Amino acid sequence: MATAGKVIKCKAAVAWEPGKPVAIEEVEVAPPQENEVRIKIIATAVCHTDLYHLFESMHKDGFPTVLGHEAAGIVESVGPGVTEFTPGDKVIPVFLHQCGKCRFCLSPKTNQCQKAWDVVRPITMAPLESRITCKGKKILQFAGTSTFSEYTVVNHMSLAKIDPAAPLDKVCLIGCGICTGYGAAVNTAKVEPGSTCAVFGLGAVGLAAVMGCSAAGAKRIIAVDINPDKFEKAKVFGATDFVNPKDHSEPVSKVLAEMTDGGVDYSLECVGNVEVMRSALESCVGAWGVSVIVGWTTLKDTSIQPVQLISGRTWKGSLFGGFKGKVDIPGMVKAYMDKKLKLDEFITHNLKLDQVNDAIELMKTGKCIRTVLTTS
Amino acid sequence: MATAGKVIKCKAAVAWEPGKPVAIEEVEVAPPQENEVRIKIIATAVCHTDLYHLFESMHKDGFPTVLGHEAAGIVESVGPGVTEFTPGDKVIPVFLHQCGKCRFCLSPKTNQCQKAWDVVRPITMAPLESRITCKGKKILQFAGTSTFSEYTVVNHMSLAKIDPAAPLDKVCLIGCGICTGYGAAVNTAKVEPGSTCAVFGLGAVGLAAVMGCSAAGAKRIIAVDINPDKFEKAKVFGATDFVNPKDHSEPVSKVLAEMTDGGVDYSLECVGNVEVMRSALESCVGAWGVSVIVGWTTLKDTSIQPVQLISGRTWKGSLFGGFKGKVDIPGMVKAYMDKKLKLDEFITHNLKLDQVNDAIELMKTGKCIRTVLTTS
Repeated sequence: MATAGKVIKCKAAVAWEPGKPVAIEEVEVAPPQENEVRIKIIATAVCHTDLYHLFESMHKDGFPTVLGHEAAGIVESVGPGVTEFTPGDKVIPVFLHQCGKCRFCLSPKTNQCQKAWDVVRPITMAPLESRITCKGKKILQFAGTSTFSEYTVVNHMSLAKIDPAAPLDKVCLIGCGICTGYGAAVNTAKVEPGSTCAVFGLGAVGLAAVMGCSAAGAKRIIAVDINPDKFEKAKVFGATDFVNPKDHSEPVSKVLAEMTDGGVDYSLECVGNVEVMRSALESCVGAWGVSVIVGWTTLKDTSIQPVQLISGRTWKGSLFGGFKGKVDIPGMVKAYMDKKLKLDEFITHNLKLDQVNDAIELMKTGKCIRTVLTTS
Repeated sequence: MATAGKVIKCKAAVAWEPGKPVAIEEVEVAPPQENEVRIKIIATAVCHTDLYHLFESMHKDGFPTVLGHEAAGIVESVGPGVTEFTPGDKVIPVFLHQCGKCRFCLSPKTNQCQKAWDVVRPITMAPLESRITCKGKKILQFAGTSTFSEYTVVNHMSLAKIDPAAPLDKVCLIGCGICTGYGAAVNTAKVEPGSTCAVFGLGAVGLAAVMGCSAAGAKRIIAVDINPDKFEKAKVFGATDFVNPKDHSEPVSKVLAEMTDGGVDYSLECVGNVEVMRSALESCVGAWGVSVIVGWTTLKDTSIQPVQLISGRTWKGSLFGGFKGKVDIPGMVKAYMDKKLKLDEFITHNLKLDQVNDAIELMKTGKCIRTVLTTS
């Protein structure tokens, strides 16, 4: 391409400081260096983790940054050493880096990389290096991706090549939320056929968890949210029962215990709230319940009574639903193409990248499930 | 027997109030009622949970009581409806009640009974009913067993019949601590061959956990205790490495991470201290580490950062090592008889029931592993 090897000037949404709207700016995206790939982002969705970074964690040294990590695009050019990708390939960036060589990457037990927490600092969620600058300043690449931009550069270990026929404005969702929820049910909880599940929080991740429970053959899926407007949507993904904790004077764990003769077999926390995490654990049956933390927060500790585990519960968690991103994303895209995975039903709004602040507002106020931003 | 159907007057150690030495008293043990069995206790060991109840939890409504729950004896007489036991049978009382009919008892996933927490109240650790009285007062049966007595009465669901050739002054240990630690490694953590384990706390339960890790084929077993006198004993059960947290300025989780390239595969907390529980969780490898809470406490909550689970750790717990007492105890006795399970090595002191306060003192001061009290 004519742009290969050159700096690309393009539009991106820059978050200059925490707690403020992002600004559409002209940025410079440097050519990919060794083992890197420059991508033209076609579609990017807004995920709650973008908002978490902007409005909740608010670590000053995580700014300025370009947010966005749930996206799909087309390879523009590749740096030295990259043999797996060529310009024109359809791709999904992966926020969960994999070196491919460490004892984590070589194990089937995890999708973590032993080097990931060195490369992407967990607090600021940005690697030390960046290929994006704006007004002469280095702009951090959030989650190693920064997809609220017309172009970005990622490491080839953080990129999955997908079916050339895949519609990018749909499969972009596979880059984070859908895998996170779906995989938490299927890979982390390992929901069994005939079981009873509860999903706390019915955003895209929670709905994907409902879909995962359903795919795994759960007999009963109890959807829990303080916003009853979400229940209709949850039904679409397979929820069978609905509980609004605000409708009950007793704790939701007691309500669920009464509904299920002692508690659900599996519970999934898809909110990122430490009290809900505890509540989800307490809602699963003492003798063998498995509770999975899916929602993200680094702000507070969560706590339990030891006897709640001693009785036989298991408390787990996963990032990106336990999927090894680079390896497993193509299969999830295939599942969508084969109509075995719902994606369209998550998309409530389609906007342009310029309207990113509107998309953020829609999520903040709970008015969308997923808004997909396109760049052209 | 001549005593069948009659009240038996015998010696027992009565704990009249929390925080005080127990008193050897003459008690009356009523005949067994429907589905109950009266046992002559031959040998009973002192377990830390007896001390926990006496000196730590100190719930006033759990007194007066006869402590003791790790024992072996001989059936003296049986109540109406009992067909499984006859006078003369060698037995081990089981503190973990099983009704045999509920959805917990019918599931292979748990050793809990859905009715257990109704029958044995978790706070006072005593059922509402008791067959023991002293000086006209009802004496609570601690853990439903009360084995610091020459005779006691238990429900037939809380009793395991064992090999008539078994030496009761040895196999009594199978009634609690040994199964608890051994099973936590084998059944709950499901330690894999070739793995690396850490065991926190080297009392009988911790040493049994070391033995369990070893039996499961662990390659490396790191024994952690602030009392280095325990390390020699841990070696006997298979420990390969030894860490005294007091020898290090950094947290023990960091020390273990450095020793093991990021953390152990399995960690077992055998202390009953909420800070150690957290430390044990943090010591296991973020990507797939499994940490099991074995030690008992109801005094405080334990806490974690959600990201410690989200990274891929699993936090579990078990009571009695996940063994279904009535069903699995005979097999553990057989393992001992076949020399596949060590028991003798746990016994550091042999005393008489009259000397129970000396035995309690030995445990309190960390000078014994197990003291076995015999009644004659």
